[in-house]
Amino acid sequence: MKLSEPTLLLDEDKCRNNIAFMADKARQQGVALHPHFKTHQSQAIGEWFAEEGVKAITVSSLRMAAYFADDGWEEITVAFPVNVLRMKIIKDLSKRIRLNLFVNNLESAQYLESKLKRPIGVFTEIDTGYHRSGVDYQSRIEIAKLLEFFKSSSHLQFQGFYAHAGHTYQVQGKEAVSKIHRDVADKLNAVREHFSPDYGAMKVAVGDTPSCSLADDFSGVDIIRPGNFVFYDLVQAHIGACTTEDIAVCMACPVVEIHPERGEVLVHGGAVHFSKDALQDGDQQIYGKMVHLHNKGWGEPLQGCYMKSLSQEHGIVKLSPEVIDSLKVGDWIGILPVHSCLTANLMGSYCTLSGHLLESM
Amino acid sequence: MKLSEPTLLLDEDKCRNNIAFMADKARQQGVALHPHFKTHQSQAIGEWFAEEGVKAITVSSLRMAAYFADDGWEEITVAFPVNVLRMKIIKDLSKRIRLNLFVNNLESAQYLESKLKRPIGVFTEIDTGYHRSGVDYQSRIEIAKLLEFFKSSSHLQFQGFYAHAGHTYQVQGKEAVSKIHRDVADKLNAVREHFSPDYGAMKVAVGDTPSCSLADDFSGVDIIRPGNFVFYDLVQAHIGACTTEDIAVCMACPVVEIHPERGEVLVHGGAVHFSKDALQDGDQQIYGKMVHLHNKGWGEPLQGCYMKSLSQEHGIVKLSPEVIDSLKVGDWIGILPVHSCLTANLMGSYCTLSGHLLESM
Repeated sequence: MKLSEPTLLLDEDKCRNNIAFMADKARQQGVALHPHFKTHQSQAIGEWFAEEGVKAITVSSLRMAAYFADDGWEEITVAFPVNVLRMKIIKDLSKRIRLNLFVNNLESAQYLESKLKRPIGVFTEIDTGYHRSGVDYQSRIEIAKLLEFFKSSSHLQFQGFYAHAGHTYQVQGKEAVSKIHRDVADKLNAVREHFSPDYGAMKVAVGDTPSCSLADDFSGVDIIRPGNFVFYDLVQAHIGACTTEDIAVCMACPVVEIHPERGEVLVHGGAVHFSKDALQDGDQQIYGKMVHLHNKGWGEPLQGCYMKSLSQEHGIVKLSPEVIDSLKVGDWIGILPVHSCLTANLMGSYCTLSGHLLESM
Repeated sequence: MKLSEPTLLLDEDKCRNNIAFMADKARQQGVALHPHFKTHQSQAIGEWFAEEGVKAITVSSLRMAAYFADDGWEEITVAFPVNVLRMKIIKDLSKRIRLNLFVNNLESAQYLESKLKRPIGVFTEIDTGYHRSGVDYQSRIEIAKLLEFFKSSSHLQFQGFYAHAGHTYQVQGKEAVSKIHRDVADKLNAVREHFSPDYGAMKVAVGDTPSCSLADDFSGVDIIRPGNFVFYDLVQAHIGACTTEDIAVCMACPVVEIHPERGEVLVHGGAVHFSKDALQDGDQQIYGKMVHLHNKGWGEPLQGCYMKSLSQEHGIVKLSPEVIDSLKVGDWIGILPVHSCLTANLMGSYCTLSGHLLESM
C-alpha cells in the first residue's frame, strides 16, 4: 500500500466484526436491524451487511436512498423529516423499492397524499427528550390527527413510531446510556399503547449507536437503526459504546513538519478531511488521537498524543518527546477520528488494509 | 430559481465587489494580489479575479493547482508545506506553469532537488507567532541552511518569505488586527534584512483576510494572499473585517418542522452542508445566522435568530416568536455561514441569484 495523500484507512476485519456484533445482538434481542448507512455511504460496505442477513436499511437523504436502491436494496427508510419539495425522486423511489418516509406533520402528510400515485410506508418521529426533530411524545392531539389522516389515506401506510435518543451522546457508561434508552423506549411504548387500540398494530424503532451498543433490554422495541457502530470513533469510545480497538477507520496523514521545541508535528490532514467535531478529553479539546501505522493496520492511541487543532488543510498533532524523536518529514502517522460519520462523508472513499479502494457516495 | 435541497446561494455582485475592493486596495498599497482560491475552489469565480487584473494565484493543494492550471492560470503557489511524496504531480505542474512551493525544511529541499528536472519557485514559510507551520522567525541558523541550499540548487529558485497571521482570528477590530499585521510584517522584514545582503533580493508575502481587509500599512510587504474575503462570513464580520452585508454566500435551507413551543424550527442543513465551525456570539455558540430570502437575494441577519446546533443533516434554528409565526413547513430560510471556506468546500457548487449553477472542484 503506497500512500501519497491523506487517506482514510479501513480495517475490514474490525468493520465486519462491528457489523456481526450488531447483527448478533439484534437476533438475540429479537429486534430487526435496519442499519443506518449514512456513516459509511458505500455500496461495497453495504454488501457486508447483506452478508450478515440485513434486508432493510436506513439512510439520511433521498439521494442516498437512490444510491443504495441502485445497488439492489429493496426496503429503505429515509430517516429525516420528509422534504415535500422533492416529489420527483420520492415518486421514482416509490416505484422501485419499499420506501419508508418520516412524516411528522399534517401539511407534509396532506401534500404527499395529494401527489403520490403509489403507497409508501410512513414512520412518525417522536421527540422523547432530545429536542431535535419529531412530535413531542406528550402531544397526543397532534399525533392523533396524524394517525387519523394516515388511516383515511390511500398512499400513506403508517408503520410506527421512531425516536433518536441523541441525548445518549451527552452521558458516559452503560448505566447512564441504558437509562436514557429505557426512558425513550418506554415513552414510545406509552404512545403506542395509547393509540394501537384505535389504529392497529404499529412498530417502535430507535436508533442511536450508544443505546444499541450498550443496552441489554430491548423490550418494546421492534427495529433498531444504528449507523455509527459500523466504524465507531473517539466519541463512541469516550461514551463507552466501544473500545478504541473497535474503531475501524483511521486517517493516514503524512508528517510535513516537525517542531520538537513546540512538542508538535504538522500533518497534512485538516478540516476538509476530518470535518471539525472536537471531543473534550479531560482538560484537552481534541480532534483526533495518534496511532502508529504498521503493515497490518494500526496500534492503540499513544498516551498524550493527540490532534490539537485543525485548519482547512493543516493538522497540528501534540506528541510526546519520544514520539517526536522517532519521526521524520515524510513519515506517516494514523489519526483516529473524533466523528467517523463526518470524516467518511468528506473523504469519499476508503483504502482497505489490503490496498483496495472502496468508493462511497 | 426553484430550489428543492439545501443550496449555497452566491450573490455575484457582492462577490465581485469584494474582489474589486481587494484588487483596488492592493493597487493602492503597491502590493501584488495573489489571492488564495481555496475558499471558492471554482474556475468560474476565478475568472472574476482575472477580470480584475489578477495574474497569479494561491491554492492549498497540488490537486487544486492542477484544477486551476487546467483553466489557464500560469503562476500558482501551493501554500502548504510541500509533500514530497507527490513528485508526479509536482513534476507535471512544473512543466505546465510557474509553480511555487513552500519548502520549510532541508529534507524536503534535498529531496526536491534530487528529483526535479525543471525549476520551481520556492517560498519559505516563517512562523511569526501563529505556531502552525513554518520555521520560527528567530531560527536564523535553520533559515541560513535553507537559503544556502537554495543558492547552490539548480531547480529551487528562492522567491522569499511568507507568513500566515492566523492569530488575527483571535482578536477583533482594526486596531488589534493591524497591530498583529505590523508585527508579522516587521518580523518577516527583519529576517529579509538579515539575509538579503548575502542572498540577494527576496519577497515578503502575507496572507490572512483580517489583515488584508483592515490594515492600512503594507510597507515591507510585496505580495498578499488572502482567500476568505471573496465571500467573507460571520467569523470575519465578528472580527470586523467585513460587515454582514458584504457576505456573498448564504445557504438556502428548507424548513421541515416548526416547534413554536421550543422557539425553534428544524431545517434541512447540517454538518454535511455547513461543516461544524462555531462562533461564540455573546453568550451563544452559533453555527449561522438567519436571514430572509427574497427574489433579489437576502436581507440582514434577524436579531436573535441563529443556528443553534447541527447534526449530520439536521439544523436547529432558534427564532423569535414573530419569525416562527410567519413560517410554514416547506418555506425557505437563509443561513449566513460561520466559515464560508468549509461550507463552500462541502457544497461543491454555487447557485447565483440569477439561477446559474457554478461548479467548484
